[in-house]
Amino acid sequence: MALELIHEISQLLEKVRATKPLVHHITNYVTVNDCANIVLAIGASPIMADDIDEVESITAISQAIVLNIGTLNKRTVESMIAAGKKANQLGIPVAFDPVVAGASRLRNETTEKILQEISIDVLRGNMSEIRFVAGLKAETKGVEASEDDQKIAVKEGRFVAEKVALALNCVAAVTGATDIISDGKRVCYIRNGTEHMSNVTGTGCMCSSLVGAFLGAAKPGQAFMAATAGVLVSGLSGELAHERAGHLGYGSFHRAIIDVASKIDATILRERAIIDEV
Amino acid sequence: MALELIHEISQLLEKVRATKPLVHHITNYVTVNDCANIVLAIGASPIMADDIDEVESITAISQAIVLNIGTLNKRTVESMIAAGKKANQLGIPVAFDPVVAGASRLRNETTEKILQEISIDVLRGNMSEIRFVAGLKAETKGVEASEDDQKIAVKEGRFVAEKVALALNCVAAVTGATDIISDGKRVCYIRNGTEHMSNVTGTGCMCSSLVGAFLGAAKPGQAFMAATAGVLVSGLSGELAHERAGHLGYGSFHRAIIDVASKIDATILRERAIIDEV
Amino acid sequence: MALELIHEISQLLEKVRATKPLVHHITNYVTVNDCANIVLAIGASPIMADDIDEVESITAISQAIVLNIGTLNKRTVESMIAAGKKANQLGIPVAFDPVVAGASRLRNETTEKILQEISIDVLRGNMSEIRFVAGLKAETKGVEASEDDQKIAVKEGRFVAEKVALALNCVAAVTGATDIISDGKRVCYIRNGTEHMSNVTGTGCMCSSLVGAFLGAAKPGQAFMAATAGVLVSGLSGELAHERAGHLGYGSFHRAIIDVASKIDATILRERAIIDEV
Repeated sequence: MALELIHEISQLLEKVRATKPLVHHITNYVTVNDCANIVLAIGASPIMADDIDEVESITAISQAIVLNIGTLNKRTVESMIAAGKKANQLGIPVAFDPVVAGASRLRNETTEKILQEISIDVLRGNMSEIRFVAGLKAETKGVEASEDDQKIAVKEGRFVAEKVALALNCVAAVTGATDIISDGKRVCYIRNGTEHMSNVTGTGCMCSSLVGAFLGAAKPGQAFMAATAGVLVSGLSGELAHERAGHLGYGSFHRAIIDVASKIDATILRERAIIDEV
Repeated sequence: MALELIHEISQLLEKVRATKPLVHHITNYVTVNDCANIVLAIGASPIMADDIDEVESITAISQAIVLNIGTLNKRTVESMIAAGKKANQLGIPVAFDPVVAGASRLRNETTEKILQEISIDVLRGNMSEIRFVAGLKAETKGVEASEDDQKIAVKEGRFVAEKVALALNCVAAVTGATDIISDGKRVCYIRNGTEHMSNVTGTGCMCSSLVGAFLGAAKPGQAFMAATAGVLVSGLSGELAHERAGHLGYGSFHRAIIDVASKIDATILRERAIIDEV
Repeated sequence: MALELIHEISQLLEKVRATKPLVHHITNYVTVNDCANIVLAIGASPIMADDIDEVESITAISQAIVLNIGTLNKRTVESMIAAGKKANQLGIPVAFDPVVAGASRLRNETTEKILQEISIDVLRGNMSEIRFVAGLKAETKGVEASEDDQKIAVKEGRFVAEKVALALNCVAAVTGATDIISDGKRVCYIRNGTEHMSNVTGTGCMCSSLVGAFLGAAKPGQAFMAATAGVLVSGLSGELAHERAGHLGYGSFHRAIIDVASKIDATILRERAIIDEV
């Protein structure tokens, strides 16, 4: 167990709650309310703005930005590029969620364009999406990882994460049964969460938004820890929410994810995190 | 009681859960999260994508599409037409929800355009909306059926449903105190649900999304059963959710609709469905 | 205590529930579902429509409109102007929520444009936003009032509210620890609510939508009472929701706000309202 890493994550969580970083989202309209609420639940402050005439100004007053192509359109893609470039200029960290990359040429080309024009701090996706980015063939079905991908050994996932991290000089966070986070040198595995999280829309998006919140409180050079913190809080929120409310049905489970995120603290992290640095 | 129909619906529900059909939505931003979550609750997989440059690709990998004009704009209407045509080419079933048709020229012309250019499998709306499609005068007030319409006898509703079904060669599902589903030959009435469903936004949209989920698992020629299944699950989810949580207020009732949908099974269908084929 | 005002608000609430005014929103995609649901919870009927080709028609059949610039873009700003002008022509009341005004030139210019071209009945915002409108320097951070603003004495808040109300010939509702409502002559303070409301996205937006619902049932000349009613119901819903569900976490608190709003009645208003007319 990565006790020191868990301790550092607890400290970063405290810093999120103390400093309330503003996290600028250009994201999809399906899960945007949950993204805003999970950012508030963890103690940060969300702002959503996507018009090309204001995204640079909003990014400039933010501590992190989250780009999510879930319901991309040509207008908002342009805004994502502008916001990302401004963030890069100002040293503001960028999280990118290539939702369902691989499913259409628009998604593929947008993903490539964002990765070419913007320096990303954290790339967060499921195995299908990260494999797409890695240039491997990925079957994509809806917003969940395809079945084949689920069976890929953690070993293979690690290979993909490291490859992408090195190629893009970023942290790659591949979420799934085992979450794999790598910056190309360090690698950690998280075995929290529950398969039932795929029964609620937006658990992936919320994970990316949590990464954004932690990035907003992190120092330069702490992107690996911020990504790990976001993925860990996401998994723990889902896992504990399912214990509490899963038996009631998906609506209650959904609500409980936000409940738990708002209650996550150092004790829960210490007692429940299943995280290994390898 | 239509015991055989209920049995067939149970089998179709099992098939939804076994095959997890991908349901492509071009829908409104008010209730889109609920639409995605009810599709997951019933066991299917939602995907929302509305840019003209990707809707055909996304439709092509889907098992059904849902077009909903709740917050239509000229950009997404164009995408609906493109997605619908692609679905028709590929034999992918189409559900159409003409939200508040009758309330503005844009809604009326869009409804007409969609019905002219796309072959629809299921049209789902309240009496005001379906009457508009039937070319009858309909008073429209917000997204609920107007009071006059509520009082229209089931007999008149049946007339309208049959007329529309024959005119469009589709299944018409008119939801209200008594739901009426007809393909022009068969007609069935469902008396589940509760008037309180109109106290939560999106119960109509969710119904259409459920129809889409069932269409995605149905064989060609089973659109009548798929529409009936979607309307029945919608009514039962609302009715049982109100029994469970209605006394707590509309927020809890809302959440319970998703809870119940995720728990619907053959036993509930058998014990609670009030459905008659006439 | 303003017992007569509370009594009038109870009567207006009854009228909302009896007449179910249609409230046309052009609003943001983050909190739109909550806005629709709180409008239903209080007994009115929401409709969301933002295409330039239909906003005038939808406004024309509505009893009030709500303009909210939370996720403004140039397309919807144009629609807001058109809807507002139509509302002014027809004598339909307008509520305006200048979300995060002060944070970007687009927001600032849009706010100015709306206030120049449309006659507003109620302006609802936090202190940062209303100070921006008042032409004072306001620091803006995300969608919450900045810390400095929170410390501003109620006295100063009253000055700003009165100034804006007189300048725009409208009712200004400044929400915060103490809510201040003024039409330039009358002023009232509301001390309901809880600071925890800022932990859920959209509590400000929902407040503006409640104001819209009450405006839709009010007679001409009752905008001050309608604004007070909306702000009071918002505060009471948050306060009572936190008592019920705050300990469970932010997700349950969020849901409980809608629950409570749907249960608000004359007894709760009489027993719990903390309102003073000064």
